Amino acid sequence: MKDTAILLIHCPDQQGILASVTQFLNKNNGNIIYLDQNVDRAESIFFMRVEWELDQFAIPREKISDYFETLIAKKFNIRFTLHFSDERPRMAIFVSKMSHCLFDILSRHLSGEWIVDIPLIISNHSDLEPVAKRFGIEFFCFAKDSKTKEEQEVKEIALLKDKKIDLIVLGRYMQVLSDNFVSNFPNEIINIHHSFLPAFAGAKPYHAAHERGVKIIGATSHYVTADLDAGPIIAQDVVRISHVDSIESLVRKGRDLEKIVLSEAVYKHLQRKILVFNNRTIIFN
Amino acid sequence: MKDTAILLIHCPDQQGILASVTQFLNKNNGNIIYLDQNVDRAESIFFMRVEWELDQFAIPREKISDYFETLIAKKFNIRFTLHFSDERPRMAIFVSKMSHCLFDILSRHLSGEWIVDIPLIISNHSDLEPVAKRFGIEFFCFAKDSKTKEEQEVKEIALLKDKKIDLIVLGRYMQVLSDNFVSNFPNEIINIHHSFLPAFAGAKPYHAAHERGVKIIGATSHYVTADLDAGPIIAQDVVRISHVDSIESLVRKGRDLEKIVLSEAVYKHLQRKILVFNNRTIIFN
Amino acid sequence: MKDTAILLIHCPDQQGILASVTQFLNKNNGNIIYLDQNVDRAESIFFMRVEWELDQFAIPREKISDYFETLIAKKFNIRFTLHFSDERPRMAIFVSKMSHCLFDILSRHLSGEWIVDIPLIISNHSDLEPVAKRFGIEFFCFAKDSKTKEEQEVKEIALLKDKKIDLIVLGRYMQVLSDNFVSNFPNEIINIHHSFLPAFAGAKPYHAAHERGVKIIGATSHYVTADLDAGPIIAQDVVRISHVDSIESLVRKGRDLEKIVLSEAVYKHLQRKILVFNNRTIIFN
Amino acid sequence: MKDTAILLIHCPDQQGILASVTQFLNKNNGNIIYLDQNVDRAESIFFMRVEWELDQFAIPREKISDYFETLIAKKFNIRFTLHFSDERPRMAIFVSKMSHCLFDILSRHLSGEWIVDIPLIISNHSDLEPVAKRFGIEFFCFAKDSKTKEEQEVKEIALLKDKKIDLIVLGRYMQVLSDNFVSNFPNEIINIHHSFLPAFAGAKPYHAAHERGVKIIGATSHYVTADLDAGPIIAQDVVRISHVDSIESLVRKGRDLEKIVLSEAVYKHLQRKILVFNNRTIIFN
Repeated sequence: MKDTAILLIHCPDQQGILASVTQFLNKNNGNIIYLDQNVDRAESIFFMRVEWELDQFAIPREKISDYFETLIAKKFNIRFTLHFSDERPRMAIFVSKMSHCLFDILSRHLSGEWIVDIPLIISNHSDLEPVAKRFGIEFFCFAKDSKTKEEQEVKEIALLKDKKIDLIVLGRYMQVLSDNFVSNFPNEIINIHHSFLPAFAGAKPYHAAHERGVKIIGATSHYVTADLDAGPIIAQDVVRISHVDSIESLVRKGRDLEKIVLSEAVYKHLQRKILVFNNRTIIFN
Repeated sequence: MKDTAILLIHCPDQQGILASVTQFLNKNNGNIIYLDQNVDRAESIFFMRVEWELDQFAIPREKISDYFETLIAKKFNIRFTLHFSDERPRMAIFVSKMSHCLFDILSRHLSGEWIVDIPLIISNHSDLEPVAKRFGIEFFCFAKDSKTKEEQEVKEIALLKDKKIDLIVLGRYMQVLSDNFVSNFPNEIINIHHSFLPAFAGAKPYHAAHERGVKIIGATSHYVTADLDAGPIIAQDVVRISHVDSIESLVRKGRDLEKIVLSEAVYKHLQRKILVFNNRTIIFN
Repeated sequence: MKDTAILLIHCPDQQGILASVTQFLNKNNGNIIYLDQNVDRAESIFFMRVEWELDQFAIPREKISDYFETLIAKKFNIRFTLHFSDERPRMAIFVSKMSHCLFDILSRHLSGEWIVDIPLIISNHSDLEPVAKRFGIEFFCFAKDSKTKEEQEVKEIALLKDKKIDLIVLGRYMQVLSDNFVSNFPNEIINIHHSFLPAFAGAKPYHAAHERGVKIIGATSHYVTADLDAGPIIAQDVVRISHVDSIESLVRKGRDLEKIVLSEAVYKHLQRKILVFNNRTIIFN
Repeated sequence: MKDTAILLIHCPDQQGILASVTQFLNKNNGNIIYLDQNVDRAESIFFMRVEWELDQFAIPREKISDYFETLIAKKFNIRFTLHFSDERPRMAIFVSKMSHCLFDILSRHLSGEWIVDIPLIISNHSDLEPVAKRFGIEFFCFAKDSKTKEEQEVKEIALLKDKKIDLIVLGRYMQVLSDNFVSNFPNEIINIHHSFLPAFAGAKPYHAAHERGVKIIGATSHYVTADLDAGPIIAQDVVRISHVDSIESLVRKGRDLEKIVLSEAVYKHLQRKILVFNNRTIIFN
């Protein structure tokens, strides 16, 4: 596998963008190994993800951003982010007492399914410290109540910055993060909510689903924003239930949904396949 | 196929109900051809549907209800409804301008998939009168505005009672029925809502789903109650969507969901496989 | 809605194709309203569907094919088909005795969901003639046995050619078409098989599924080729079943799958969103 | 939670079974906390799972089997198995080199999702020994080739018998077990096959699925019998794919299916909710 560069692009739709971008890469000997694009016709916005090999590429990697800005982006009013395949994201996992999402993430990490570093796990309880130890990952406990939450978050943010974390995964972390916390990590916090959002936002969604008598339950992974459970949705999945399912049975069936949907979202993020626009996600192929 | 009787039962859970009911049928030579039961452990309620052949049954059909009440139901505080397989339900269909649910229902009726009479179609517009004609079914148009709604509903109710209608199917009928109307047909009106309820209740759910950026859309069939889109859910189904789907595309994909989910609910109702309890449904196998 | 042209393209993958094609359209004032492309990395084949408005396009529609061949296709060894949005496909439906797929197709046609002409329905039985009449479509019965099959097919082919049919939909037509018949309509015959192919190819798939004890059944729409049930798959869908489902219940649940999956395939074909390569389909967004 | 007894029953369908069994339990003060039954009408077989509390039950647990046989089973020609909720099944896991199923099982075990003992892991390679160590479970490596397979299996069987194993889970164990091995553990070996059986039985199903161009892939858990991939199916699930998915992408998507479907089957087995009849499974609610 050669090293590659990845561009995520959006701009007002107009003639010639696709041709210009691909020509820019072709001319400079960038062998394109992935390209996915689409146009939102209603809002007239062009979206694109393109990935190309760096080894023959004429422009040195540290100058790509500058050249692309000058030669292409300005003309089309493009906003873009540039990533390199050899950048290894650094992920922190936040958990409370339930372990199923944590196990699923650590298993994928350890087995090499995901290319990511996980320097630490943070929790408001010590219950899952043994799991962290079993996988050899540092565990920090920041207990919180309404009085201590603010100062504890300050410490958490400092720790995360110190560890150079660029992705925070909330694996059933049963605490609401403050606006201040969230604003430090825009589109860098992924949560799993145990319902088919926007249905049953907030606390105890399985109880609410049972009470309402739905025939299908779901799970939703999303970027965390200041509005609770209202950030851009990354992935959702559902499972059929029936009148014979008790709340305990919903919780059991939901666990499998939650861990798979959360991990799918994290995978897409790590692959740089997500672009956020207007509180919605474009998930490239 | 022999004529059968069908009992739908619920009562506080207690020892001996199942044995007593099955013995009652066995002793009187009622050959059981279907039995499904379950207990809601959280609320301690027993639910059951049992169906048996009438030809050898010792109790004449007109006396079954009385005997069952006296010999069994009283003892266990059972509430029940009794149906006979040779009763042919009489269904009215309410539509507005969209035809997909109407076509689906009429096709099933005409092909013999469903055992039901459909004496009439009611609409607030005349657009679908040609479809009614094509299938040879009487069509009535009751245009409504905020002033005329009440009197038009009075006429509709009179017509429905006159035609001995015992099931009303709202096949994308874009009008809210008044509490008075609904109270005339308790658990006898089935609606299809074009979202995964309780998400996106009310108007324009596909627009709302697109705006929210969900990755899955759904449709929900339910009994109509006084609370809009809040009645007992009978069936739900979903389909995956992505950022490339426009609102038009959601509408197109949703049509197929809507007609299938509505027809599934109607089928279950016609089979007497639905029991409503506490605004939830028990859907027997 | 303006008239558009649609190009379906495939060729060996190489630098510059995408840029060349989009430039060709841009330079000649073809406003692109749809573009979807992908590369099969394993086989190194480039696939693309592009659609653009004709009204400002500099090249007259009757010359587009020639110009594209000369200026672009030759260079990249592209194979392509060109379609125009104002071409109205002409579809024939083949049925036997079951009506659910037929009703579904005719309903979509009549309601304007699909832009297509349906000049005739062909069957080996007369059972569904009343349905054809109800929808005002000519019905032809070609009864077949092992002796008459060949001559009957000759008549069918003549009739289909005479009616300028360019799409044949087999809506549960319970006859195998001869190789000769199929070779007259390459990638123009769509069948629905009532199983999750390649499982349960051939006759009585629901019986076979029940016998095997599967927990999910499916339906598969595919282009018909000389090999029975082995043509390029267009669409598939599944539904969960359980040990309580009898064969009759599988048949009932399967009907809904069949009609929806068949209609989905026909829709994609009518939209010119299918490209066949190596007995597989590329289904554009 | 009180200790319970569980009966799994099947017999020719006939009047009075259900009443007799429930009366037997009621009379002897067995409080029924679960009952699910159904009749296969085509084959006229009655199936049932019933669970009741032991604390007030008049018959001592060691005599239940004898009493039930004498008083009920003989009369109705019932075949049954009796289990107790405080019996802790002993599971062995067989793996090769892939870890995703193993991690999923060990995580559920460690987190207390499942009540089971896992005394050992067996493999034909040493790759996953570190995973076994991490979870503190004994690991045995039995390398096999065509010459050594028979003797190695003899050792494995001896070890499994010595460890009193009553459930063997093949978590992507890439070896076919001999008939002799299988006959030692009837309905006690659960395998996960990475396809939607009976499609793509045998080796390399993802390659075969890609080659065939299916639009949905699946995974199937089943009891192992002498016929390869042909044992009673316990659980299946599927995921949609498209032409953009490479074989690698199918493998990635399939991993999640495999682990969830395998674990679902194991869970049902541990709950004593599976009855095998005629190479099919009845999966109770």
